[in-house]
Amino acid sequence: MQTIKAITENSPQSFDEDVSEFPRRLISRTELTPVSFLRRTAALYPDRVAVIHGEIRFTWAEHEERVNRLASALRGAGLQKHDRVAILCRNLPPMLEAHMGVPAAGGVLVAINTRLSTEEVRYILEHSGARFLLVDRALFDVVEGLDLEQVVMVEIDEDMSPDSGYERFIATGSPGEVESWLEGEEEPISINYTSGTTGRPKGVVYTYRSVYLNALGEIIEAKLKSDSVYLWTLPMFHCNGWCFTWAVTAAGGTHLCLPAVDPEKIWGLIDTEGVSHMNGAPVVSMWVVNHESAHRLEREITVLLGGAPPSPTLLGQMRELGFRPLHIYGLTETIGPTTVCEWQDGWSEMETDLLAPLLARQGQAYVISDEIRVVDPEMGDVPRDGIAMGEVVMRGNNVMLGYFRNPEATEEAFRGGWFHSGDIAVWHPDGYIELRDRAKDIIISGGENISTIEVEQIILRHPAVLECAVVSTPHPTWGERPKAFVTLRPGVNATESELIEFVRERLAHFKAPEAVEFCELPKTSTGKVQKYVLREREWQGSDRRIN
Amino acid sequence: MQTIKAITENSPQSFDEDVSEFPRRLISRTELTPVSFLRRTAALYPDRVAVIHGEIRFTWAEHEERVNRLASALRGAGLQKHDRVAILCRNLPPMLEAHMGVPAAGGVLVAINTRLSTEEVRYILEHSGARFLLVDRALFDVVEGLDLEQVVMVEIDEDMSPDSGYERFIATGSPGEVESWLEGEEEPISINYTSGTTGRPKGVVYTYRSVYLNALGEIIEAKLKSDSVYLWTLPMFHCNGWCFTWAVTAAGGTHLCLPAVDPEKIWGLIDTEGVSHMNGAPVVSMWVVNHESAHRLEREITVLLGGAPPSPTLLGQMRELGFRPLHIYGLTETIGPTTVCEWQDGWSEMETDLLAPLLARQGQAYVISDEIRVVDPEMGDVPRDGIAMGEVVMRGNNVMLGYFRNPEATEEAFRGGWFHSGDIAVWHPDGYIELRDRAKDIIISGGENISTIEVEQIILRHPAVLECAVVSTPHPTWGERPKAFVTLRPGVNATESELIEFVRERLAHFKAPEAVEFCELPKTSTGKVQKYVLREREWQGSDRRIN
Repeated sequence: MQTIKAITENSPQSFDEDVSEFPRRLISRTELTPVSFLRRTAALYPDRVAVIHGEIRFTWAEHEERVNRLASALRGAGLQKHDRVAILCRNLPPMLEAHMGVPAAGGVLVAINTRLSTEEVRYILEHSGARFLLVDRALFDVVEGLDLEQVVMVEIDEDMSPDSGYERFIATGSPGEVESWLEGEEEPISINYTSGTTGRPKGVVYTYRSVYLNALGEIIEAKLKSDSVYLWTLPMFHCNGWCFTWAVTAAGGTHLCLPAVDPEKIWGLIDTEGVSHMNGAPVVSMWVVNHESAHRLEREITVLLGGAPPSPTLLGQMRELGFRPLHIYGLTETIGPTTVCEWQDGWSEMETDLLAPLLARQGQAYVISDEIRVVDPEMGDVPRDGIAMGEVVMRGNNVMLGYFRNPEATEEAFRGGWFHSGDIAVWHPDGYIELRDRAKDIIISGGENISTIEVEQIILRHPAVLECAVVSTPHPTWGERPKAFVTLRPGVNATESELIEFVRERLAHFKAPEAVEFCELPKTSTGKVQKYVLREREWQGSDRRIN
Repeated sequence: MQTIKAITENSPQSFDEDVSEFPRRLISRTELTPVSFLRRTAALYPDRVAVIHGEIRFTWAEHEERVNRLASALRGAGLQKHDRVAILCRNLPPMLEAHMGVPAAGGVLVAINTRLSTEEVRYILEHSGARFLLVDRALFDVVEGLDLEQVVMVEIDEDMSPDSGYERFIATGSPGEVESWLEGEEEPISINYTSGTTGRPKGVVYTYRSVYLNALGEIIEAKLKSDSVYLWTLPMFHCNGWCFTWAVTAAGGTHLCLPAVDPEKIWGLIDTEGVSHMNGAPVVSMWVVNHESAHRLEREITVLLGGAPPSPTLLGQMRELGFRPLHIYGLTETIGPTTVCEWQDGWSEMETDLLAPLLARQGQAYVISDEIRVVDPEMGDVPRDGIAMGEVVMRGNNVMLGYFRNPEATEEAFRGGWFHSGDIAVWHPDGYIELRDRAKDIIISGGENISTIEVEQIILRHPAVLECAVVSTPHPTWGERPKAFVTLRPGVNATESELIEFVRERLAHFKAPEAVEFCELPKTSTGKVQKYVLREREWQGSDRRIN
């Protein structure tokens, strides 16, 4: 009989020692960086179309060369490791090139919201310590009033003519790869400034590791493939385009640039370029499906919807035309989308009316994300009953490193060892979360919590309603009460009392709005309704302002 | 004019200091582990079918519970962190459960090739220092002769009846999650023993990080989705099933177990279970497409083919029936597949005769892999001309940590800072690599590696044998088989069948030569046996010679 000898000799300690001696670095471990996606795709599909902008088409070989030239030009202009390179630009090819070229050079990308004011842009340039500014000529008036003597500024021209600033700048660079300075995947790759409803914008720091993993997550969720054509309806300055700036490249798909959201143009591109994917706030899809050019799709288009739940009406219209809506949720601090309302068996066959409330939920974590929790103030899980409300908290590779040069805000956001989203949600028995409100939007009326989103969802079911926002309004007895602001569909009518009655029939009476006002809703550059504007208006002159 | 003040104050040093103070661990960083895939999928699809084995179906909730019970039972039986848990098992549910349960418990999985001999299994148990052995009752005769007193042994029964050893074992565990002991993603998760070209099998160490990233790579390459049904034609002991043990779970697809490759059964499962994916050596697909039950598919099946390039005949048959063949290449040391022959524009419309030579190439790196190189002996790139030959070398997150308790072999394999595959290839102008010769003499018979040197060493032990060389010979079923050329000692005799039997007694039966020819061996001037001369002779006139 043969005896196995060695077993008792192997203590866990000696095993760990044996294993710890392996030469990991470089051979068995590569630092994760999205730049590798470009290298691979350019090697694999050098002659396929990488980027489309109007009549301009760059192949992957051309795109990579332009990225290399940008990286090399930045170094030539004095860029040192981790120097911040700001870019204020619409969805043009240079914006995409900066997402690879700045990391390739070793810089940190600061993509600035194109709708900000001069003062906001000044603050971000100063706070981030930007040494470079790439600026879209169409946005030049925003920075015109600034003293930018200490900043290397490069002007981007929409038509990309060879004598424009950016083209001349990258022409100073060399076409080959510059040597990488990356030492560790947890180095910062970008800083994205949140609009921040109160006070100054905060700089959210992303790492190479976090955007690499999130890009893979987006490929898997959106099912990006090498024949995907991604239409840039989402601004690239938004969480670096929810990491699709890197994900589409990793998948070898095509970037279809769109400098401004224009439903007419979108339908033109859908019809001529074989669009397979586009992302954005529901309002963008609303414009698209309600446009006169809208027609049934020949090829399914996957649309990731974020920022607000899709309304039943929108869902119905999208399904009818052949779109595949996917409801996602995330924040700048979670590197973009981090939960997805995954379709379950049988949902495809469901009536839109029944499906809508299911798809309105934010869902569960992405495959690369840690489990999302909904917690009470003591950080305990709230019951998964679809009723108890708590705050949504996250942690893991989908969470920012922290707020740049703002340790107080970082500490506050990370209290208890989790990132606090500030969003209030319920947790359903099936594990899906559903937002009820921003913490600051919740209405406390006579001691009862009222979720403004819940009320909005009901009002949106009314056939005459196009858009709706509910905020608190002061009330002598109850402290505050909900008030609805509503935009009606063209050519349809509804009265205030009719809408209030509509809600009372479907929700607890105390949740019904006190008043309804018909108007245009104020929105952010990305189409998000600015509820705080409405709220401020309601509370102006009131000394009982709570939030 | 507003001045931007802060820029010159921000040196790169202060930036790095600011950024280094973030509280990364736990909040902004989670250690990558495939166990998280199971947690997420079980939360998302608790009631969907996770694992099918004959009439047995486990939902994700049930599968997770069984995994939890296994992890808990292992700890209950004394498992300490990094204890090796060996498993010798066909593609049965417990084999799948071990791939999650052992890491969840904190152990290191050693999945053993089910075709090895008692002596080989003994060596692996001893070398790995296994403290546990889960063994398929059908393979019990392999370990029967071993003294396993110091090993906790658990018997697995194909029918999974409640009174079988494994079922009783996991019943001792609790249904909930055990606390994770994982501290870092670069800890070892499994050791996979190669058959090895020289001498003893080598233990290839995988890390949590490497299998996590490779699993995501497989999802992206194979396009696994939550409605995928993966048929287990590939043994799970092969590089942990090329990481599909984890990838299919991450995608939320269904594992369809198959204890033995049987084309009749495979067609039955294709017809009844909606198979969407299966992997393996080309010979497996050959059996499938040539079986009398073969018919055109109703739903496309993606087949990853590895181990040898698909022949034109096979390709033609697969395409005609509606399979999507994808040629991949990798080694145990590269955590399974690491290159893929990606289809290019227009390939789908190509005639099989023209396509076959393109698809016979091993291709380019996976999205999560570093670029694969073909190098000369000085580690310089060979020209990309499709003619110059060199060795294929790799590095990155798709490369093993090293050979367990074999620093010399590790050093040798990692010389020059790259993993040396031992495979000889050309590099085509389009960046695709194409193997010209496998680790010189290795024989791949029915998807299994046979080291000629190993067989030679056994034959040389026979008292009548003076010299011996083993090379591959073509075989209609297995692709290739070993053939021995033997010079006998003067005045001593031995027959062909006697020598074959001699090998069968000492090695796995599939390694025994198909034929023995007695002759003088061709030699170089310095007395080295010229195996290539013998090989050329064997393959002369054969159109099925692959390399």
